[in-house]
Order: sequence, then C-alpha cells, then structure tokens
Amino acid sequence: MDEPLLVERRPLPVDGRLGQQLAFLIEVDRLKTVLRASTLAAEARRENDAEHSWHLALMVLVLAEYADEPIDVGHTIRLVVVHDLVEIYAGDTPLYDDQLRTSQVERELAAADRLFGLLPDDQALEFRALWDEFEARQTPEARFAKAIDRLEPNLLNWMAGGGTWLTQGVTADTVSTRTAHIGEASTALGEAMTVLIDNATRNGWIAAGQHGVTGPA
Amino acid sequence: MDEPLLVERRPLPVDGRLGQQLAFLIEVDRLKTVLRASTLAAEARRENDAEHSWHLALMVLVLAEYADEPIDVGHTIRLVVVHDLVEIYAGDTPLYDDQLRTSQVERELAAADRLFGLLPDDQALEFRALWDEFEARQTPEARFAKAIDRLEPNLLNWMAGGGTWLTQGVTADTVSTRTAHIGEASTALGEAMTVLIDNATRNGWIAAGQHGVTGPA
Repeated sequence: MDEPLLVERRPLPVDGRLGQQLAFLIEVDRLKTVLRASTLAAEARRENDAEHSWHLALMVLVLAEYADEPIDVGHTIRLVVVHDLVEIYAGDTPLYDDQLRTSQVERELAAADRLFGLLPDDQALEFRALWDEFEARQTPEARFAKAIDRLEPNLLNWMAGGGTWLTQGVTADTVSTRTAHIGEASTALGEAMTVLIDNATRNGWIAAGQHGVTGPA
Repeated sequence: MDEPLLVERRPLPVDGRLGQQLAFLIEVDRLKTVLRASTLAAEARRENDAEHSWHLALMVLVLAEYADEPIDVGHTIRLVVVHDLVEIYAGDTPLYDDQLRTSQVERELAAADRLFGLLPDDQALEFRALWDEFEARQTPEARFAKAIDRLEPNLLNWMAGGGTWLTQGVTADTVSTRTAHIGEASTALGEAMTVLIDNATRNGWIAAGQHGVTGPA
C-alpha cells in the first residue's frame, strides 16, 4: 500500500485544490485492475471492480422501483459508485471467501485513510461518509445499494452456470444466508433471488447439502 | 447486431416486468467488452466502456463544484452511467477517429432502438430520454456530463505521455477543438485542459503544427 501514487509518474501541471482532485481521480484508475471472483456474462474473463461498480449504478436505476422503502436514487448511485474504492489498496474480498473475510475490516479501514486522504479535507470527509453509510446499512439507500451489490455477482453466477457458487464448501444454505440482504431491502428482488437459488440448485450449479455435498438435489 | 441476447443462453426463471429488466441488465454486461482507444493509467491495456462510465460518474461527484451553471449531481451521474450504452451494438467511436465519426449517429440510433427496447415501455422511454439529453447537450447537466466525458480520455493521454493524441493528423489545434466542450461547461476545467495541452505539446506528446507536423514546439 506504500507504492507511489500513479500521478507521481507524470506530475500534472495543475496545483491547489483541483490538482489534488485530479491526482485522486487518476489514482482511482487502479480500481479497473482489481479483479473480482466473478466471471463476466459477455466474455470469459473475470470482472473488475470499476465495471462492477458501473453495473450496480445501472441496476439501481432500473430496479429502484422494487425498494421496499422510498429511496433517493441519485444518492443510492453515489453509494455504489464509491463503495468499492477502498479495494484499490485492500483488494477484493469475495462473497464466498471466509478466510479473506476475517481480515476485511482492518484492511479496508487503512485503505480508506490513504485513498480518501488524497482529496481536499471536505471531500475526504464526504467520501468517507458515503463509504461508511454503505457499510453500515442504516439508511434505506445503503440497504438497497448493498442488496444490489449482492444481486449482481449472483446474476453472473447464473449466467456462468455456477461461477463462485461452486466455491468449496458453499451450499444453497450459504448462498441464501449471504444474499439475505437482498430480501431485507426488496421483497420482490429477494423472492427472485430465492427462485434463482432453487433453480440453480436443481441444475447442480449450487451444492444442495448443508455440509458441502455437491450435486443436484 | 442481430445475434441472440446473452440471456437466451441461460433463460432466467423470472417472468414479467422484472424478467424483462433482468434480461436488459444481463445484456448490458456487453459494455464491459467494448474497448476504447484510450489506455489505462494503472495498467498497460485499453479501457472498456463500462469502467470508463464508472470513472465519469466518480469524476462528476468530485468535480461538480466547477460547473459554471448549477447542476443536479444525481441527474448528471445518471447521464454518464447511461451515455455509452448504445456502443454495445454500435461500437466505440474514438474522439480522434474522423472516419468512424461520420457514421456514428446512424449506427447509434439503431443500437438505441434495439437495446432500450428490451426494457418495459416506460423505462425504454426514460433511458432513451437520458441518452438523448446527453447527446443534445441542451441542459446544464448534459453539458457538464459531456465535458467530463471529454476530460477523462485526455487525462489518460497525459498519463500515457501521448496516447490517442498521437493519432495520425492530430495537432494541438485538433485537441483544443475536440475538447472545447470542457470549457463551455466549466471555465476552471477548460483552463486546466488548456494547460495540459500546452504542456503536452511542449513535451512532444501532441503535434504542435496545424497540418499534422509532429514534434515538440
């Protein structure tokens, strides 16, 4: 996490507040290189965090009507645009990787300090607050944003005929538990996720048993 | 443009309005495979439209204060999230590729009909309206969104020490003309762009002459 900033390779001839902001906006280019566990539906390669974040923003726009509580769509999109930035320094923590999940909070807090610290102070606070709001899931917007963040990789798993559902030890119960945030923000999307899990399990794309037994139900 | 939809590969067990919306949201995964002319700052590969669109959304969030007219930030982000979707079927048209630019409008109109037509009628109209608004540049939000769309690849060119500025026939005058939208929406960002062009020209990253003569001023 201590390597030089990207902008140090070719310092910008712009000083002051705007110079700081542009340095941050160049540094975040790194999000395009943070690979997720999910594979694209459109191509046989892993998804990166930047394109994932864009996909969530579009999903919020299209699916906002299914939020159980009223949400401010513009604010919800802000949350998803910002939610993965800390992974630039902390790396991705896959939904079904229990080992990485134990160290996630500590790694991401250090990353947030470094990354948001590149911004002018007022914006550093503003972006940190957006990230905290997303993580805390205490507002309707954060609950819906997190629901969409859980739905997207599971749609990609459906299109892959398994994908990260086939992670060692993961069963239909695990998938139901890890996607519970969806139904907590949207009854309709939660029901759709349950249908996907049931069908995927019948297809043998999710292990049916409770103890890692793999195979169609 | 006539190939089957992605979702036809593994039809979703979800019908009705939500089924239509999810089919659209899977189809747009293709935006992650539309390559642009620009190279990333963080890695030696070309940028794709999905990660570009995410980058614009974050730039709008950080740079909104420089808009000369008041803008609704949430709406501006909606515009940039949607602005490149038609390239899923129409392909990218690089800023400095004059040949492709002549057929751009026709290709993109056909693509918009097909892609937005996947959505329920009300949303098809809503998304088409967002794209039309962006293209027409008649609202403060669309003007700022377009400015940011022009700024981003030029920042990547700076980081590449040339990038698409080195396209055959492009000079500092061409770059100034093609980036004029920036200063039309934001005096401060327009001035920063001019400083970048001047410095890049002095560095030999943009041809100085008016007739394609390459080399430092």
